[in-house]
Amino acid sequence: MKLATLHDGSRDGRLAIVSTDLRKCRVVGGSFPSMQSALDNWEKAMPELLEARAQLDAGAGVLRFDPSQAMSPLPRAYQWADGSAYINHVELVRKARGAEVPESFYTDPLMYQGGSDSFLGPRDPILASDAAHGIDLEAEVTVVVGDVPMGAEPQRAGEEIRLLMLINDVTLRALTASELAKGFGFFQSKPSSAFSPVAVTPDELGSAWDGRRLHLPLCVDVNGVPFGRANAGVDMTFDFPTLISHAARTRPLAAGTIIGSGTVSNKFGGDPGKPVAEGGAGYSCLAEIRMVETIRDGAPSTPFLGFGDRVKIWMESAGGESLFGEIEQTVQQYGGP
Amino acid sequence: MKLATLHDGSRDGRLAIVSTDLRKCRVVGGSFPSMQSALDNWEKAMPELLEARAQLDAGAGVLRFDPSQAMSPLPRAYQWADGSAYINHVELVRKARGAEVPESFYTDPLMYQGGSDSFLGPRDPILASDAAHGIDLEAEVTVVVGDVPMGAEPQRAGEEIRLLMLINDVTLRALTASELAKGFGFFQSKPSSAFSPVAVTPDELGSAWDGRRLHLPLCVDVNGVPFGRANAGVDMTFDFPTLISHAARTRPLAAGTIIGSGTVSNKFGGDPGKPVAEGGAGYSCLAEIRMVETIRDGAPSTPFLGFGDRVKIWMESAGGESLFGEIEQTVQQYGGP
Repeated sequence: MKLATLHDGSRDGRLAIVSTDLRKCRVVGGSFPSMQSALDNWEKAMPELLEARAQLDAGAGVLRFDPSQAMSPLPRAYQWADGSAYINHVELVRKARGAEVPESFYTDPLMYQGGSDSFLGPRDPILASDAAHGIDLEAEVTVVVGDVPMGAEPQRAGEEIRLLMLINDVTLRALTASELAKGFGFFQSKPSSAFSPVAVTPDELGSAWDGRRLHLPLCVDVNGVPFGRANAGVDMTFDFPTLISHAARTRPLAAGTIIGSGTVSNKFGGDPGKPVAEGGAGYSCLAEIRMVETIRDGAPSTPFLGFGDRVKIWMESAGGESLFGEIEQTVQQYGGP
Repeated sequence: MKLATLHDGSRDGRLAIVSTDLRKCRVVGGSFPSMQSALDNWEKAMPELLEARAQLDAGAGVLRFDPSQAMSPLPRAYQWADGSAYINHVELVRKARGAEVPESFYTDPLMYQGGSDSFLGPRDPILASDAAHGIDLEAEVTVVVGDVPMGAEPQRAGEEIRLLMLINDVTLRALTASELAKGFGFFQSKPSSAFSPVAVTPDELGSAWDGRRLHLPLCVDVNGVPFGRANAGVDMTFDFPTLISHAARTRPLAAGTIIGSGTVSNKFGGDPGKPVAEGGAGYSCLAEIRMVETIRDGAPSTPFLGFGDRVKIWMESAGGESLFGEIEQTVQQYGGP
């Protein structure tokens, strides 16, 4: 099942079911007007969602699915917690500044609490007030869970995975250093994130989803040029059930909580990643290629994003079909309140 | 106006208007069944809220207000961001471990993104799986805002303050050190927080609220013994408009966002605080008295909370009336999922 949220002028939009090929959709309506309302009562929502899909398949009430009319599948959520499951990403960051990776990082997941009150739609611009903030994309896989009890072990936690989405978790790199130094996590360095046009149930992913990891390349283009093709199933040190369990150690997670994988990042042989142009899997954020350049050349040569730059993030099935639709964003200068 | 959320078996409960003396209440109903629904459309909600209060005053549909039947005024929120506005608190923590306070801390607020998906009601127990986690209370003042545009300056940000509440922002001190060292902020060290029985509009606070700070003592008792009487209007380095503006620097804040003051903390003359029993204003968390003990005696003597310990947090008007009702929680051992 593929689900989207259509703009209707409200904060939570209107829940719609989308065809597997992402061409058609149908408003769900009934008792479950919004994505959150369905997640709040997933078991009860399921028959209505299946009925909506049957009607979609039968051609009743069908609309063309236009991703530019889609909000984030959850336009606002009660929780967004992002792991950093690809340790290669962490190793790269540290290596570039000559620091070791603490041993605990291989057993204790890094995770930060993100802002979840104002997500962007998949085609909304990235608004920044200053290009000197070091605007970076971060392409990731996320899961949406049901109610996870406090203290749930990974197996129990994994049973609560309801949906998967892609995210562009934008980071302002020039603001991260001072926030990291303060120890209180990210705040101003994390502006609003954008999600893929649709959220999909695990069964839509077939054998690419093994209940723990999603084994497909995450495609990233910057200004139309292939930039990242890292496989989300490779080098993921902590799987999703482990990340969810980590988040639920000392408190329950409410239905609709979004848990992120962190920036997808593949090693290349013994190397910490290789650009797509050189036959590698590339990167899922600009900071990584800049770190590789720093390690190789002593200084980065790839700039962060500037106004007018374009980012595209998507994932294809083995057969070449877009699974989540495309996040396509342009960086724009924010004019002020 | 005083507002509460009553248990009705749903996740968001039922919005109620409460009398100034906190004895009576009346369900609001109509177009605004929940606190979030009112905050989403505050201007439109106001006439219905005023009408509900008029009916409450007239004795129509009146119920006894029972704080044990109240959920958090926002049982779940789209954002909870907590500042650390009382630098005395930060100075104490640093002093105890022999570290300096960076100069930037006096001009750039500390703020962390907290979990907001599962708040506790004012009488719900604090559940912890292990007393060795160093269970601590943190008594704070919070504001709830309307929509704050990205980049809003403090004056503009302050205009969006809709409600005030108290919070017990529970912290697991034994888990903070390793999380601070990782730099990604707090996660497992911050279990679910509890809010006061009612949220109040600024006008209910009279001259104690000057639009920037709340000038009244925040009362904290531990196991029935006076522990804290620190004045929330004193030694608050960053006022609420400044904290909100800080949070909104690179992204908008959606209506219903809760912004916290951080642990209220007063100096005592040249001293970093003095216990209530010695004539001081006391403390709003156990970590502070433990730090003062460490500075004085070389080691802390006050333990963190254990199972069965009781915490009470409230605030009185100059006339001795409870303004927000009481947070009253007992620490209980969590039995597992």
